[in-house]
Amino acid sequence: MPAVPESFDLKSLARAYAAGLDPRDVIAAVEARIAAFDDPALFIARPDRATLDARAAALAALSVDARAALPLYGVPFAVKDNIDVAGLPTTAACPDFAYAPSASATTVAKLEAAGAIVIGKTNLDQFATGLVGVRSPYGVPRNTFDPARIPGGSSSGSAVAVAAGIAAFSLGTDTAGSGRVPAGLNNLVGLKPTPGLASTTGVLPACRTLDCVSIFALTVDDATAVLDVMAGFDPTDAFSKVFAAEKQGPWPAGLRLGVPGAKDRHFFGDTVGEAAYAAALERIAGLGATLVEIDFEPLFAVARLLYEGPWVAERLAAIEEFVAAKPEAMHPVTRAIIAPAGARTAVEAFKSLYKLKDLARIAEAVWTSVDALVVPTVPRAWTVAEVEADPIATNSALGTYTNFVNLLGLSALAVPVALRSDGFPSGVTLIGEGGRDGFLAGLGRVIEGTSGLPLGATGKPRPAFTPLALDAPADTLPLVVFGAHLSGLALNHELTGCGATLIGETRTAPLYRMHALAGAPVRPGLIRVGEGGAAIKGEIWAVPFAGVGALLARIAPPLGLGTVVLEDGQSLRGFICETAGVEGAPDVSHHGGWRAYLAARA
Amino acid sequence: MPAVPESFDLKSLARAYAAGLDPRDVIAAVEARIAAFDDPALFIARPDRATLDARAAALAALSVDARAALPLYGVPFAVKDNIDVAGLPTTAACPDFAYAPSASATTVAKLEAAGAIVIGKTNLDQFATGLVGVRSPYGVPRNTFDPARIPGGSSSGSAVAVAAGIAAFSLGTDTAGSGRVPAGLNNLVGLKPTPGLASTTGVLPACRTLDCVSIFALTVDDATAVLDVMAGFDPTDAFSKVFAAEKQGPWPAGLRLGVPGAKDRHFFGDTVGEAAYAAALERIAGLGATLVEIDFEPLFAVARLLYEGPWVAERLAAIEEFVAAKPEAMHPVTRAIIAPAGARTAVEAFKSLYKLKDLARIAEAVWTSVDALVVPTVPRAWTVAEVEADPIATNSALGTYTNFVNLLGLSALAVPVALRSDGFPSGVTLIGEGGRDGFLAGLGRVIEGTSGLPLGATGKPRPAFTPLALDAPADTLPLVVFGAHLSGLALNHELTGCGATLIGETRTAPLYRMHALAGAPVRPGLIRVGEGGAAIKGEIWAVPFAGVGALLARIAPPLGLGTVVLEDGQSLRGFICETAGVEGAPDVSHHGGWRAYLAARA
Repeated sequence: MPAVPESFDLKSLARAYAAGLDPRDVIAAVEARIAAFDDPALFIARPDRATLDARAAALAALSVDARAALPLYGVPFAVKDNIDVAGLPTTAACPDFAYAPSASATTVAKLEAAGAIVIGKTNLDQFATGLVGVRSPYGVPRNTFDPARIPGGSSSGSAVAVAAGIAAFSLGTDTAGSGRVPAGLNNLVGLKPTPGLASTTGVLPACRTLDCVSIFALTVDDATAVLDVMAGFDPTDAFSKVFAAEKQGPWPAGLRLGVPGAKDRHFFGDTVGEAAYAAALERIAGLGATLVEIDFEPLFAVARLLYEGPWVAERLAAIEEFVAAKPEAMHPVTRAIIAPAGARTAVEAFKSLYKLKDLARIAEAVWTSVDALVVPTVPRAWTVAEVEADPIATNSALGTYTNFVNLLGLSALAVPVALRSDGFPSGVTLIGEGGRDGFLAGLGRVIEGTSGLPLGATGKPRPAFTPLALDAPADTLPLVVFGAHLSGLALNHELTGCGATLIGETRTAPLYRMHALAGAPVRPGLIRVGEGGAAIKGEIWAVPFAGVGALLARIAPPLGLGTVVLEDGQSLRGFICETAGVEGAPDVSHHGGWRAYLAARA
Repeated sequence: MPAVPESFDLKSLARAYAAGLDPRDVIAAVEARIAAFDDPALFIARPDRATLDARAAALAALSVDARAALPLYGVPFAVKDNIDVAGLPTTAACPDFAYAPSASATTVAKLEAAGAIVIGKTNLDQFATGLVGVRSPYGVPRNTFDPARIPGGSSSGSAVAVAAGIAAFSLGTDTAGSGRVPAGLNNLVGLKPTPGLASTTGVLPACRTLDCVSIFALTVDDATAVLDVMAGFDPTDAFSKVFAAEKQGPWPAGLRLGVPGAKDRHFFGDTVGEAAYAAALERIAGLGATLVEIDFEPLFAVARLLYEGPWVAERLAAIEEFVAAKPEAMHPVTRAIIAPAGARTAVEAFKSLYKLKDLARIAEAVWTSVDALVVPTVPRAWTVAEVEADPIATNSALGTYTNFVNLLGLSALAVPVALRSDGFPSGVTLIGEGGRDGFLAGLGRVIEGTSGLPLGATGKPRPAFTPLALDAPADTLPLVVFGAHLSGLALNHELTGCGATLIGETRTAPLYRMHALAGAPVRPGLIRVGEGGAAIKGEIWAVPFAGVGALLARIAPPLGLGTVVLEDGQSLRGFICETAGVEGAPDVSHHGGWRAYLAARA
């Protein structure tokens, strides 16, 4: 029987399970780690041991094939206590508010169906209102690096559970930054999906127009694996959207990353954090990126709308009856924020919506000059004492680089980068357009994977980094071109104009004869002949599916698009030619490629 | 010099201008028609004669080429007086509110740049609040068919000006139905674009999240021509959106139109209107459509949100300072609707937004079973006296089939269908998904064009109806298939699965040999041979550009997509074959097509 892996990263767990590990042993290890971490403020409720063992036993009883079909087989995960898990109360960190949900949230149900095991409901800033992690009657979950500092919130317990090595991953929620700030303060990955990508059915709303279910994980690959399971359209969630899937890809050439200039860098006196961010940018630039300073003022203006504007009325709308009936049961800071929202008017709500729309129009221009933003996840790592001394201002400051994201419908991914000179974690958050979750993950996995950092606060080493293969992006067709469509030649604009990207150079198997067709621009026609054929140089382009139609519409006879066999044995789509069309066209195969022919002809 | 055409439909005007008509003569005719119609409640402000003549003279001075480049050369149009026209005051039918705009609205500026001439600002229900046309200190514009009946609103004057033959088209605005109801009551086309398709910059908002600039015209083709000029993304309008253009097409085969069942047909005692709607549906079914009764309750629930819910706060937000400063300057009914909206809370606003989202999720399911809805434009043709006796209830009832449309982001087109048994006009409104304006126009032009109705209230005959050519839809590639992709054969699902539609059957020029390739499913390979070729039957499919990529990705060698010459001489994209791939494959050209070969083989 293999041992329970010291690290609960998904690769280690999958390897151990493949070797015969019993999920009941993982449950036993989870119990032992919870006991060893010894933080009564971490979980608000947990399934009893018998329930956990029964769940583990049911998984263990599955056939080998059935197990293999479960992408999260036996993976222990924690759930923020504003997300429903059937069989456990939902408190939102307000004991008097507790209710017994009749069903699990859609995301939880999907993860359980994929083999994951809920090990407990975690503590949070009450009603998910706060970025600090100290606004809970259940206490302050202990920061995994420095007990004097805040754990971050509102998904405090979910982050700590993963950083401490207790849960393999956890679910948080993120309205203003609750899925990112605690990741930054605990050396974790925090994946905040595009709003609408993951269902919020079964989540107690904070701001229902903005809420996202988020993922804390030890690595970006782990977070992506979890997102792959839990994302998807949910007809029971009125805010759910259909997105064209974008898979994570390799680090792209020519990457442009937007960063705040000097006037927009706010660290609130945390010079160690400021230096760490500067060092992080240097490292990221070294990975291959142009850093572009952009004006953050429109983003900050959006951020201000969130707490200063009427969106706080959404928080009241979610729990209106409770606030009216039992205001004294609320955390005093939370009550001070939410209760007055009843005085906000509908006129103000609509006016703020107009202002948001105007700001969004300004902010969206940023995507013409950069591919993603890179911001500090946390501007300053405040202590619990500092936050308790000034609970509102410190909380607002914490959201400097997070508050605007969901109002603009963006995707975000917090990744650890390095330990600061004082040993505390520091990380950056990548922010991209809505639907670019996969793109961000492709960047984040390189930044995090090559950081050399231990996993969370476990002290365990990060898995070896494996670059992704240079694959064609999803929803594109790899297409081999040989003539006027090659880079720099007359018809190349037909490729670039439809969003195609160059994958690389190639050569056909020695099966073709290349003819120089009459007409302008001059074009080659490749005829497959088998015996007596030559190998012809070409380029592989990734053409968006829609671009293929536009491209084909412009291809004049005798050329067409069919299948081309390459010298490495693979068959890709590419330019072919009707035999009737090459009659009288000189055979120029001996040049070995169109560029060589053009050069010889010139 | 040709005479000014009796009818100001765009075709008649274009013909006359092409023959040498001077725009100054059109201006003179407009003045004469205004005088003859003699309704002081029609226009709120008009450019003086010198200004109009100068504008007409400037157009007349253009070169022939410059005129030809102006799609609306010399076309007189009227503008609802909540839309800015530089040089004229904007009153929104509230004299004390009047301001002098510094620039014309984006839509007006685009129309003027295309050669159209603003002939005046028209009366409306004050602040565009109402569907009746009687809530204005400037009086009630006279219904062009029955002076006892309401003209409809809020775009009352804009509709009357077109129906009376004074303006060739006019601009209205439409929040709850103001661009449709007056069309229905005056035998006009009322085109209400998808929200965001036409700019609202320079429009005094009613509900800024819902407002659309709409078009009144004599025919659907006229309305479409105007929309083509004025639509398009406007960066100065935060609610402007980018839409993939959808052109109007011919009446499609297999059309499914959703209609209300008995329980959802509300005519408020107007039995003549009820009978007219039933007759309209019969006629539309006869044009080739399956009528599908759908449940309108979710749509009605959305409609109730508009006037009962907090959206009325948007109306207050637009004119808040004025309402506070000069409430007595408002029409009493308008004031009674708008002023109390200050008491609506932000909590209520967000809760109603959630409710709308939930209802929208239910309502969107309708598009899986129908291609468009067909509803009565107006449930009952109330008289002015009836409305004045009960101003709120009659107004609400008028919006039965219009109120829900903009809240759901839909497109709509009101078209005249017939005169009722009492001689009053009756029409239907086509409603489609957002962005389907072109599709609706394709249907509406057939319904209206074949109605035999006179144009508006002019008594002039409708231009002869010309069906559109059976073209492939925009952003699709016509593709000729010969084998397993034919309707009903093994790989046809690859076409239907990517949204391709059958355009028709065809035959190649006699240039090809068809070979039966080995493998499963069996497929033909067409080799172009020129001399000695046969004509081969096939089908033309319109394949969405994106589908072409997906299709090509699945085409196995030796087949590909290239150019095919048809017997009518046109060259289309279609299946071609590499000669090397047909070695040993029997020549089956004598069957003349793949179906015949399969039948002979079976």
